[in-house]
Amino acid sequence: MKFIHTSDWHLGRQFHNVSLLEDQQAVLEQLINYIEHNPVDAVVVAGDIYDRSVPPTVAIELLNRVVKRICTELKTPMILISGNHDGAERLGFGSEQMKNAGLHIVSNFEDMLTPIIIKTDSAGEVAFYGMPYNDPEQVRFAYKTSVSTHDEAHQLLVEQIREHFISEQRRVLVSHCFVDGAIESDSERPLSIGGSDRVSHEHFLDFDYVALGHLHQPQKKGAEHIRYSGSLMKYSFGEQNQKKGFTLVELDKKGFVSAKHIELIAPHEMRIVEGELDKVIEQGKTDPKNEDYLLVRLMDKHAILNPMEKLRSVYPNVLHLEKPGMLIGVEQEMAQAKLARSEIDMFRDFFIEAQDSQLSQEQEQAVTDIIKQLSQQ
Amino acid sequence: MKFIHTSDWHLGRQFHNVSLLEDQQAVLEQLINYIEHNPVDAVVVAGDIYDRSVPPTVAIELLNRVVKRICTELKTPMILISGNHDGAERLGFGSEQMKNAGLHIVSNFEDMLTPIIIKTDSAGEVAFYGMPYNDPEQVRFAYKTSVSTHDEAHQLLVEQIREHFISEQRRVLVSHCFVDGAIESDSERPLSIGGSDRVSHEHFLDFDYVALGHLHQPQKKGAEHIRYSGSLMKYSFGEQNQKKGFTLVELDKKGFVSAKHIELIAPHEMRIVEGELDKVIEQGKTDPKNEDYLLVRLMDKHAILNPMEKLRSVYPNVLHLEKPGMLIGVEQEMAQAKLARSEIDMFRDFFIEAQDSQLSQEQEQAVTDIIKQLSQQ
Repeated sequence: MKFIHTSDWHLGRQFHNVSLLEDQQAVLEQLINYIEHNPVDAVVVAGDIYDRSVPPTVAIELLNRVVKRICTELKTPMILISGNHDGAERLGFGSEQMKNAGLHIVSNFEDMLTPIIIKTDSAGEVAFYGMPYNDPEQVRFAYKTSVSTHDEAHQLLVEQIREHFISEQRRVLVSHCFVDGAIESDSERPLSIGGSDRVSHEHFLDFDYVALGHLHQPQKKGAEHIRYSGSLMKYSFGEQNQKKGFTLVELDKKGFVSAKHIELIAPHEMRIVEGELDKVIEQGKTDPKNEDYLLVRLMDKHAILNPMEKLRSVYPNVLHLEKPGMLIGVEQEMAQAKLARSEIDMFRDFFIEAQDSQLSQEQEQAVTDIIKQLSQQ
Repeated sequence: MKFIHTSDWHLGRQFHNVSLLEDQQAVLEQLINYIEHNPVDAVVVAGDIYDRSVPPTVAIELLNRVVKRICTELKTPMILISGNHDGAERLGFGSEQMKNAGLHIVSNFEDMLTPIIIKTDSAGEVAFYGMPYNDPEQVRFAYKTSVSTHDEAHQLLVEQIREHFISEQRRVLVSHCFVDGAIESDSERPLSIGGSDRVSHEHFLDFDYVALGHLHQPQKKGAEHIRYSGSLMKYSFGEQNQKKGFTLVELDKKGFVSAKHIELIAPHEMRIVEGELDKVIEQGKTDPKNEDYLLVRLMDKHAILNPMEKLRSVYPNVLHLEKPGMLIGVEQEMAQAKLARSEIDMFRDFFIEAQDSQLSQEQEQAVTDIIKQLSQQ
């Protein structure tokens, strides 16, 4: 049997204030097209379906269309788990009612213990265990135990699952976590601030395949059958050399056979262009991929008037500009910009980052009062 | 055949900063309990399932539990349409996949034209047409016509539906609109500001039953079989004398037989208590319903110290206080409060009211600049 392992779609994500929805849609169409021509027995999405817990309406509509194509039209079951970016309860609404239509959304520990069974001639019964993203506190609360790290939490959850193993079945685990020693990219949000978010791959050895999500670079860790598919597309310039796509997994009655990376090409790649302004512009005039999303690193040593405007005449999607040639000047600018930002400005930014919402008037007033008190001491 | 017609659940609503979720849950349990003991062929919810387009997680979880009980455990199909408070696309996610499990969410015009068919011995095939809430602009856009009022829009939509009529079927329309001449309550949000939001009941005469939502008072309008079930519970003090509940509808092979109002009792009623402070407190000491949500109208003619504190010692859920005995003083207070609010304060309130979100920093700055410019002219 064959199934597709993909993860970290981050539908609704913005990049330097540009919506990536059209690119996400184009890449998902390639995925659907692949399934149409190369039927598979299931599609697994290992978390971070959406980019945030309350996704924009357009992202919901896109997921709805994708599900309609894959589940309803191509009759291919989908197994989704919630990631750290998803709102588990929000994503999980109606999951009970969707099961029979082949859409399995696992967003709580109860559903985790009821595997989704796919029956095939070539591999017999395959049990897919979806482990929704969780932090140690949630596991502590749900199981009334004293786990304190992500590693302990995952060990406990795997033990819970192991009790439900049926010996003649193949077993696939779907999990959203940071396996110790695996490679990070720039576009992931840390799972834990100050604590340890790493999980040992050794907990996972009993499964025939482990479909991981969270890290955006495709990679295996600890064993051939413990893998990250990587994100749907590039989500930072640091990923410019990563090959994005999905993993095609094959199992037979004995278990793991192979895992193969199949590439997906986004209409706009994210890449870094480096050089002096004149040369970059010259190169842009004949660059067939001139609509890519670019970070331009200008190496000129003198000041340039309106470099962005000039660059965008040939590269319309320059999203970020660096001028390492004039680094000293830039550093001064940044230091000044930082000084010009008041405490409340910085707290406001921090709050948006941490809570995904604006400060209310009352909250803003309360913080302002505290800052005032502190500065008078 | 019998079905339940209910509407305007407004899950997640707050009333004077108090969450009504526990009351909503208690009332829904009565509804489920009724179905358990008096099986019906369907449950229709005519819009405003949630109180806002992005409902709080707890409201989503409550709806999920209700759906699980009614659809999955009691095997009773549910037919839901989106109302003016709901986010249609958000509510409609996965509707295609939920159908076979008996959960029918109609949130777009395409699904409106495919009725949900319930087959019964007593009434043959009954076709339920869900008409999602819509305003004239949406209808204009979807059908490329020039309707300008809610009445014209509904006329056009009913004509669309009529083309799909099958003669041997009974027909039920589910719609969320303001039927001309029907009675408003204090807790509805107007469908149109300045325009006309009224719809003639005459468009609906061809149906065997019309299950309406939007108005919170149970009532019929124009004919016995064109009805509002009213809201799940009271959502304003103005509704203190309304009997809330659901409508039990009976159809046979010839069409409409009867519609009966079945009462649901919220744990905390909303009511108004009027009198002088001493008398109200005396009465509260033996009031068996002293935990109701109250508006207290104090008739004392002299100033009273801490009336709220005194009242809450016997009526813990006094939510609002009026002092008509000291009206002149109060009016002065209000006028002063109004003067003390700046233009930006008022605009901020208006924006939250209209957009359901806070002003961003950029928006606030832009409005502040405009106010400054205007005040300098």
